[in-house]
Amino acid sequence: MDNFADRLMHAIQAKNSRVCLGLDPRPDLLPPPLLPESGTEDHFSVQAVEATIRFCHDIIRAVAPYTVACKLNAAFFEQLHVAGVLCMYALAEVARNHGLLTIADVKRNDIGSTAAAYAKAYLSGKQARRSFDAVTVNGYFGSDGIQPFIEAARQGGQGVFVVVHSSNPSAAELQELELADGRRVYEAMADLVAEWGKRAIGQSGYSAVGAVCAATYPQQLAALRQRLPQQPFLVPGYGAQGAGPQDVVAAFDANGLGAIVNASRSILYAYSQPGYEDFGPERYAEAAAEAARRMRDAINEALAAAGKLGGR
Amino acid sequence: MDNFADRLMHAIQAKNSRVCLGLDPRPDLLPPPLLPESGTEDHFSVQAVEATIRFCHDIIRAVAPYTVACKLNAAFFEQLHVAGVLCMYALAEVARNHGLLTIADVKRNDIGSTAAAYAKAYLSGKQARRSFDAVTVNGYFGSDGIQPFIEAARQGGQGVFVVVHSSNPSAAELQELELADGRRVYEAMADLVAEWGKRAIGQSGYSAVGAVCAATYPQQLAALRQRLPQQPFLVPGYGAQGAGPQDVVAAFDANGLGAIVNASRSILYAYSQPGYEDFGPERYAEAAAEAARRMRDAINEALAAAGKLGGR
Repeated sequence: MDNFADRLMHAIQAKNSRVCLGLDPRPDLLPPPLLPESGTEDHFSVQAVEATIRFCHDIIRAVAPYTVACKLNAAFFEQLHVAGVLCMYALAEVARNHGLLTIADVKRNDIGSTAAAYAKAYLSGKQARRSFDAVTVNGYFGSDGIQPFIEAARQGGQGVFVVVHSSNPSAAELQELELADGRRVYEAMADLVAEWGKRAIGQSGYSAVGAVCAATYPQQLAALRQRLPQQPFLVPGYGAQGAGPQDVVAAFDANGLGAIVNASRSILYAYSQPGYEDFGPERYAEAAAEAARRMRDAINEALAAAGKLGGR
Repeated sequence: MDNFADRLMHAIQAKNSRVCLGLDPRPDLLPPPLLPESGTEDHFSVQAVEATIRFCHDIIRAVAPYTVACKLNAAFFEQLHVAGVLCMYALAEVARNHGLLTIADVKRNDIGSTAAAYAKAYLSGKQARRSFDAVTVNGYFGSDGIQPFIEAARQGGQGVFVVVHSSNPSAAELQELELADGRRVYEAMADLVAEWGKRAIGQSGYSAVGAVCAATYPQQLAALRQRLPQQPFLVPGYGAQGAGPQDVVAAFDANGLGAIVNASRSILYAYSQPGYEDFGPERYAEAAAEAARRMRDAINEALAAAGKLGGR
């Protein structure tokens, strides 16, 4: 099974989970038992990096049974300087060893020759192949900035998720501008993604070239599912950003396949949230596991209610 | 002089140069005397990293008299794994010590909380403040993905360049789509950049929030200069990508200010180009210095011919 989309759909079915763990380690949100004595002001102290490794490792191990993928958000590793970057690659290997598909959430974008170098860093380089199953990119540069990623992914049986509609409040400022032909900018991006993905379609009917489509814009998400029937969706915006199970139902096909839903803060820092009072800072990993389990079940229940898990 | 734009305009006048050295170290294009014996297949061998440091250091030292800024392209460092990332920060410090303004060419983009982490990595973190005067970003996420960079830059007297029109052949696929209101997508991006830059205008009349506008699309470049009178331009596409001195004249204001023109391959690897036969692989740094000097003079001559260096 060399196509990334096939591997993703298989993992969803095997685990009956559509949850992607977002690994956004924020030094200032580390559970108190892990907080360095010196505080987190100096973001790349040895203590901050050690605490981050321990925290992420514990979370991955606890959450793995309830999730299919782990998205590592590069920003939170890069702000820990090079030790953090090293962590990102290492923790991706840890996640893989726990049976998770791994996504380098880097949103890289540039001209073709530069995109080829980024593709080496996150898909085809020696360490990248050990660490990552997929990468996120931004398509503003058009085809020649995307093809190097698609080619590197093809050779490694990996995937590429292109940002189509983001989850943030100001996403609409550029993405929802209306074009002269009646489409919105994000729909034009979606049409490019469909074209880019045509030669990477697996036996599942899905392409190794997928799309990032946010749960915080449920109407657009539903329309994008229709527009991109062959693209796996990576769906951000669940949990701390405000979207819930009902908002993501439209991301899935009639068989409950075709998407994974990312949550970062609401899983990682569950120990500090209402509804998790029984845990507390010491048991942050158990709280995260419980949050992932609840999220898995809530999405599956919403899909079942919508008749999308009927045949299984 | 705390505003980045003021510092940039001052540097242009002080050196009478508008050239930005693009540091894109490609392991496969290293001069033969520096090539590791084991070849460059393994992009992150110790030898490849050592050769890259030596090469970039020699180039910076040789080219500094003829250039005002140094743009470090993150992709080529990231593909050398974490040792490469460490090099990028260290070489930026080297460039600063040689009197160059430094630009972290990372084109980062994400939702606000993630953008804040990236801003820490490339602008406001302890090492970032030592290394970088400015950063490149992609505005597809709209305001809340850009504001954290602008705020971090403001605090450090640094700058932000937002990609408006890129230099690559497929730039038009998304960027030049026509909007319902008659603008093109890149013009809408430009208008957002103008808005974002309004509160960061220095004594020079230019903002610390600038724009990446490519020399390979000279008509669009000229129109963008009119549309964005307060934005400093970072102009890619010169040299190896095909643009020449005539193509960049329109990027400058009536006083020959307001832009810097980046060249990467045509400076770095000048030793292997026609017109540099007197140098040869051993004297790669001297060849690069000569290429930068010729580029500086060619741009200044084109500006003088257009009456844009008249008053000086």
